[in-house]
Amino acid sequence: MTNITGNSDAFYDSLTPDNAAMLLIDHQAGLFLGVHSIDQQILKNNVIGLAKTAKVFNLPTVLFTSSAKGPNGPTIPDLIELFPDHEIFNRSPINLWNDPKSRAAVEATGRKKLIMAAITTDVCLAFPALSALKAGYDVYAVVDASGTWSPQAEMATILRLTQAGAIMTNWVAVAAELKHDEDRSTTPAMNKAYGEHMGLYDFLGDIAAVK
Amino acid sequence: MTNITGNSDAFYDSLTPDNAAMLLIDHQAGLFLGVHSIDQQILKNNVIGLAKTAKVFNLPTVLFTSSAKGPNGPTIPDLIELFPDHEIFNRSPINLWNDPKSRAAVEATGRKKLIMAAITTDVCLAFPALSALKAGYDVYAVVDASGTWSPQAEMATILRLTQAGAIMTNWVAVAAELKHDEDRSTTPAMNKAYGEHMGLYDFLGDIAAVK
Amino acid sequence: MTNITGNSDAFYDSLTPDNAAMLLIDHQAGLFLGVHSIDQQILKNNVIGLAKTAKVFNLPTVLFTSSAKGPNGPTIPDLIELFPDHEIFNRSPINLWNDPKSRAAVEATGRKKLIMAAITTDVCLAFPALSALKAGYDVYAVVDASGTWSPQAEMATILRLTQAGAIMTNWVAVAAELKHDEDRSTTPAMNKAYGEHMGLYDFLGDIAAVK
Amino acid sequence: MTNITGNSDAFYDSLTPDNAAMLLIDHQAGLFLGVHSIDQQILKNNVIGLAKTAKVFNLPTVLFTSSAKGPNGPTIPDLIELFPDHEIFNRSPINLWNDPKSRAAVEATGRKKLIMAAITTDVCLAFPALSALKAGYDVYAVVDASGTWSPQAEMATILRLTQAGAIMTNWVAVAAELKHDEDRSTTPAMNKAYGEHMGLYDFLGDIAAVK
Amino acid sequence: MTNITGNSDAFYDSLTPDNAAMLLIDHQAGLFLGVHSIDQQILKNNVIGLAKTAKVFNLPTVLFTSSAKGPNGPTIPDLIELFPDHEIFNRSPINLWNDPKSRAAVEATGRKKLIMAAITTDVCLAFPALSALKAGYDVYAVVDASGTWSPQAEMATILRLTQAGAIMTNWVAVAAELKHDEDRSTTPAMNKAYGEHMGLYDFLGDIAAVK
Amino acid sequence: MTNITGNSDAFYDSLTPDNAAMLLIDHQAGLFLGVHSIDQQILKNNVIGLAKTAKVFNLPTVLFTSSAKGPNGPTIPDLIELFPDHEIFNRSPINLWNDPKSRAAVEATGRKKLIMAAITTDVCLAFPALSALKAGYDVYAVVDASGTWSPQAEMATILRLTQAGAIMTNWVAVAAELKHDEDRSTTPAMNKAYGEHMGLYDFLGDIAAVK
Amino acid sequence: MTNITGNSDAFYDSLTPDNAAMLLIDHQAGLFLGVHSIDQQILKNNVIGLAKTAKVFNLPTVLFTSSAKGPNGPTIPDLIELFPDHEIFNRSPINLWNDPKSRAAVEATGRKKLIMAAITTDVCLAFPALSALKAGYDVYAVVDASGTWSPQAEMATILRLTQAGAIMTNWVAVAAELKHDEDRSTTPAMNKAYGEHMGLYDFLGDIAAVK
Amino acid sequence: MTNITGNSDAFYDSLTPDNAAMLLIDHQAGLFLGVHSIDQQILKNNVIGLAKTAKVFNLPTVLFTSSAKGPNGPTIPDLIELFPDHEIFNRSPINLWNDPKSRAAVEATGRKKLIMAAITTDVCLAFPALSALKAGYDVYAVVDASGTWSPQAEMATILRLTQAGAIMTNWVAVAAELKHDEDRSTTPAMNKAYGEHMGLYDFLGDIAAVK
Repeated sequence: MTNITGNSDAFYDSLTPDNAAMLLIDHQAGLFLGVHSIDQQILKNNVIGLAKTAKVFNLPTVLFTSSAKGPNGPTIPDLIELFPDHEIFNRSPINLWNDPKSRAAVEATGRKKLIMAAITTDVCLAFPALSALKAGYDVYAVVDASGTWSPQAEMATILRLTQAGAIMTNWVAVAAELKHDEDRSTTPAMNKAYGEHMGLYDFLGDIAAVK
Repeated sequence: MTNITGNSDAFYDSLTPDNAAMLLIDHQAGLFLGVHSIDQQILKNNVIGLAKTAKVFNLPTVLFTSSAKGPNGPTIPDLIELFPDHEIFNRSPINLWNDPKSRAAVEATGRKKLIMAAITTDVCLAFPALSALKAGYDVYAVVDASGTWSPQAEMATILRLTQAGAIMTNWVAVAAELKHDEDRSTTPAMNKAYGEHMGLYDFLGDIAAVK
Repeated sequence: MTNITGNSDAFYDSLTPDNAAMLLIDHQAGLFLGVHSIDQQILKNNVIGLAKTAKVFNLPTVLFTSSAKGPNGPTIPDLIELFPDHEIFNRSPINLWNDPKSRAAVEATGRKKLIMAAITTDVCLAFPALSALKAGYDVYAVVDASGTWSPQAEMATILRLTQAGAIMTNWVAVAAELKHDEDRSTTPAMNKAYGEHMGLYDFLGDIAAVK
Repeated sequence: MTNITGNSDAFYDSLTPDNAAMLLIDHQAGLFLGVHSIDQQILKNNVIGLAKTAKVFNLPTVLFTSSAKGPNGPTIPDLIELFPDHEIFNRSPINLWNDPKSRAAVEATGRKKLIMAAITTDVCLAFPALSALKAGYDVYAVVDASGTWSPQAEMATILRLTQAGAIMTNWVAVAAELKHDEDRSTTPAMNKAYGEHMGLYDFLGDIAAVK
Repeated sequence: MTNITGNSDAFYDSLTPDNAAMLLIDHQAGLFLGVHSIDQQILKNNVIGLAKTAKVFNLPTVLFTSSAKGPNGPTIPDLIELFPDHEIFNRSPINLWNDPKSRAAVEATGRKKLIMAAITTDVCLAFPALSALKAGYDVYAVVDASGTWSPQAEMATILRLTQAGAIMTNWVAVAAELKHDEDRSTTPAMNKAYGEHMGLYDFLGDIAAVK
Repeated sequence: MTNITGNSDAFYDSLTPDNAAMLLIDHQAGLFLGVHSIDQQILKNNVIGLAKTAKVFNLPTVLFTSSAKGPNGPTIPDLIELFPDHEIFNRSPINLWNDPKSRAAVEATGRKKLIMAAITTDVCLAFPALSALKAGYDVYAVVDASGTWSPQAEMATILRLTQAGAIMTNWVAVAAELKHDEDRSTTPAMNKAYGEHMGLYDFLGDIAAVK
Repeated sequence: MTNITGNSDAFYDSLTPDNAAMLLIDHQAGLFLGVHSIDQQILKNNVIGLAKTAKVFNLPTVLFTSSAKGPNGPTIPDLIELFPDHEIFNRSPINLWNDPKSRAAVEATGRKKLIMAAITTDVCLAFPALSALKAGYDVYAVVDASGTWSPQAEMATILRLTQAGAIMTNWVAVAAELKHDEDRSTTPAMNKAYGEHMGLYDFLGDIAAVK
Repeated sequence: MTNITGNSDAFYDSLTPDNAAMLLIDHQAGLFLGVHSIDQQILKNNVIGLAKTAKVFNLPTVLFTSSAKGPNGPTIPDLIELFPDHEIFNRSPINLWNDPKSRAAVEATGRKKLIMAAITTDVCLAFPALSALKAGYDVYAVVDASGTWSPQAEMATILRLTQAGAIMTNWVAVAAELKHDEDRSTTPAMNKAYGEHMGLYDFLGDIAAVK
């Protein structure tokens, strides 16, 4: 395909339950406490909403941690509960792409489109995102399920990743892209997750329930 | 008592499980959607945290709604679940103090110190707060479990209430004042609620749990 | 009455259609362009919402201008349209209280409680508010139907007026205080004005209309 | 054409009444209540200003909704009033490009340049914008007549769309680009719409009217 | 006089050219660089606007510096130019009230109402303001012609001074209070200063000049 | 030249007094009052600083207005004073590139690099900037000497122009790029202009002057 | 003394090295991580600056912790280093006034004016501040050496404490009030601490050092 | 290498201790006082953190100043202390690339990847960054160890540099990229620097130290 901007197909082809995997990186309790680019409780809400999206659409999903025994702490329990049988890939290399087991876990998904969210955006998300782009993957960076030390660090990272070809997105849009149509069999489950993690559909749902 | 400021004892005497009641006013789904002085999801979190506080310390607690059949909508289910056996006092007068049943419910608590939170701050909190002050009650306005249409409306209301003798506070401080001491029997339950609704203790608790 | 704070009854007694007058001061097109403490279009919306409130409750209402022939410009037409038969009191003194005709117009309302909004807050609202307080009136300063040159000027004025005994409020709260009860004959008209000038009731009303 | 940046002509050729169509997507009452990236009342003002622009320049204009019977609610009446005879294309697919009737309505405009605004930006605007770009259309995303769940989601979407070749713009600029010259026959009508929806020309117009 | 709030006459009586003096404290080049509660260039503009106000109304005006030979630096030249014949009272005590010459200069004005502005608000304004209040003066703190290290320090100081009885105000309001009436002989000179230091009257004046 | 990014030389070659012209577009009093993306007084300061830069380096400079007899008003006098002998090109087309006399004035500068600033950014700057890029000019958009209706409109325009190949910059950087070296003959004049329009060098200059 | 405001002497009498004590409450590492009303690193800087002030003026200083073995963590080492021989009073009661040893430590200072800073403002500062006021002490709340969970909680607490008679202040002002005069023997030490913890004097000092 | 975006390898290859040099440009005391795009004390902290990173990984590091004898002032002492034996290259040209000695110092590092931070971003960082890109270097702009006059100037520069191929980053990410793995010999030293300059690891480290 050739289009007006000369850009890659990657920017136009949709996420589907069949072409995408989800990487949830370093959503660890210690790292949450270091986030100052987004409210920490809203970030936690968005991360869980994104994780439930992966479950609704049955996406291959991989969880990672860095130095989970150190100050970064363990993955938050609310996330673990959603994936009770998943291995969490802990690593010593900063960039998970440089950890053979972690990288193998990504490759084992067999998907070309990687939906990635991490704490922190500038390190734990940016480094593997750049590696994945170089390796030919399409990268979707979920910015509102990621966070970092300061607004300056967040903005620098977002521009760095955009420049390198990663697609910036947010958890609700990822879910909507996968949902595709209000009439699919997965729609009720996704709408339930929306109602649990989005103010609008939560409150409108409450109103509708009594009518 | 006479002190350096000439102010009332009301400003110095502590909230205790024995002298306080809690009034949760108009935390209705429709009204939540009108709040723009605080993030709506954070507000919901704070309201639930405050409600759990009432339960931990066994405070007489009264729930109110205004025009629950109209656009203001029903009380949010998360709040109802905490008080399954409580009547919710719906009313037609704007100021709940002008509704005989609602006012009677307040008086029936038998407490002089009223911990009040409402949506919206400028109407549903301010009017009964002023009435209660006039009637000789001490009023604690929980500003982060309340919200209203705009930052301007919130600030105007906070100053109006302060001027009239209401005490501005926040849900964590209310809970701490009632908790009183880390060694009381109610402390573990309150700390559990803190862990569920405060980022700091949530994340530090996760870290501690794995050590 | 004696209450815990030693404050005046003025802070507790309600606004009613029978005890209040509305003063709409210097809502002139030129002055609107000088407002930087609140968005100018939102301010205009609030002013019209407040003016409609006066009409719904049939409050004695007086409109004022300062130097309407000069750079301050004319009263905005949307306001004039609501009061086609009202005289607009133009003046040379900065403080309308020092203009005999303007002051006489206030006194002719026969009301003790004055609901005041003006552009600008620091001059056109603050000066007559202080004069009215000195003269024994109760002053309600509608801060979101007023505006001024900068956030610093707005905050300084709000504290100055609070200190001097004026009550800070917002247009929706004024309307709610006058509305008093959902069952009064004036309620439908006020709710209609709410729907025209408040996002929440506007949008919820649209939803309800199709059900 | 070859220019210094190697970019496409799309970025330099002007919008005209003959080459552009307008797509007004999902400006539904429920969705308005979910917008937190721009003030909801300002957004409504901008949407109506943009819609009047389409009428002034007689642009082919298509209105869309998603799940209008559900929580998203109906198109706001102020928009419907401007296009009383237009069909509103409701759909089940999230991306209107995947709805045959909706897509046919776009194609029926016969225009290559699509001026698009939607609630929400990240879903209802972004998905068809990407599809249209892929199909060879030029896309103008009107960011101030669009809105979404949070500032983070808005910024992510704006970068995603810019990267993919969409042109970011605002409603006043769209109108000015179509207006082209102060001497055209359409200019007075457009200036009237400016006066109704832009503070500057509204207030300056009031001043000029009395001179 | 007795009024509804029980407050002092000080809060209601107007500033006049006959009852007020102006104290311009430590507007020194070094201190300007430490201001982070207001834009430094806007602060400079406001200080000069306030100083011209003093000249227009012929107020007794006293200029002060602290440690002008040290890092605080000299009074800014734009201020000195307005008062070429005024002594600038430099001092070693932090609070100018504790410097006999400085205090004598204040007392020599013979005025009871002191209009005070300073860099920094928390030190150079707050300390002599408190001393003056204790000594029975009325204090007008011009907050937008003052500034300090941080927003937190500014807000703390404003509340401290309000609590102690100082009146918060801004330079435009001070000028308007002294101007009193559009028909006085001093009005054209004050309006000229407004046009030089207020955006609104500057730009509206430009427009008027060509008509 | 080939470099790592594949971008044009335009992004790397420096502005010099010999290769650049300055276009000051529509800095009209009425339009200033419509700016809400930057403080209006700071904008005015920056515009004058930029204009003095043009004079220091003897750049060919062209001034433009749009509908100067209408609400947009006249060019601000401070700008006219700097260029007393310059014609101001008024036009009826919105885009000055479509006005033969205005375009001829740009071409008459004989320079390939165009330093452009305008009110408003989204219309009066963006349209001729895009036309100039298409015509093969290098465009430097001085964002802090430009402004527009809202932050959303400003951000949309900045991204639109960046995407199309315009270089975003600010007035101090333009001056520094032209200044080139502290030892040139033009340096003292430029430093004088810096001292008059930049807080840092203004205040540090005051300190240095007394030492 | 009687003054114009009817307020207490407490608001006017100066802090001196002889009448004041400093209470540094719960500046614990865990609690620092929960602060979102001020940047955590700036808060730490301010706390150390305030502590050095206590040392310079040889104020009786007491350090406190709450549940130092639990999630609140230990006092930060930088603070401990300044007071190597001081006992740190750990307690189980939330309000240190209710802990006999802690309260005795306060009383042992023998001072009436208490300079208090704490994490968090709403609990660890507010509760003992209210108790101290009731007991007849003067309370200086150092807001920029304190912090809490959210801006809403901070503002509520500041108003609660102001209403109850506490004096809001900031660390630089406390130091300046104690410093009293540039010529005292303690001045050089205090200026050294200023240079270490205030940007302005740090950077100006660097400049001066090379001249 | 060819990847999906058509971008250069520069965007994907990692920084290593062997391929990178660090340029610390004009971190001078006077210039610090002119920074208003980031808090000056936080900026200083970040600069020192970045400089320690260079030391930990033994990067060739070059320090620069501009007009160090003039108002820009000397390099801050904390930076000099880290590099006691380094020459500081002072220059007269604005762009250090135009100063033969400065440029030679860059070339002498023998590295292709240049990590650059400067005050100010728009001048002292942007100009040599563009020159280095043109000369074929990879440029990493450390935005949170740089700062400039205003947020507008910062944003314009960041977009200008991104467009020209510079990589935006932040000091913590630079350090993490060089650190590469938690098991390297340099890791403890880098973690120590993190603990000294990052709130999260500072406070978590304090907690861990007592366990």
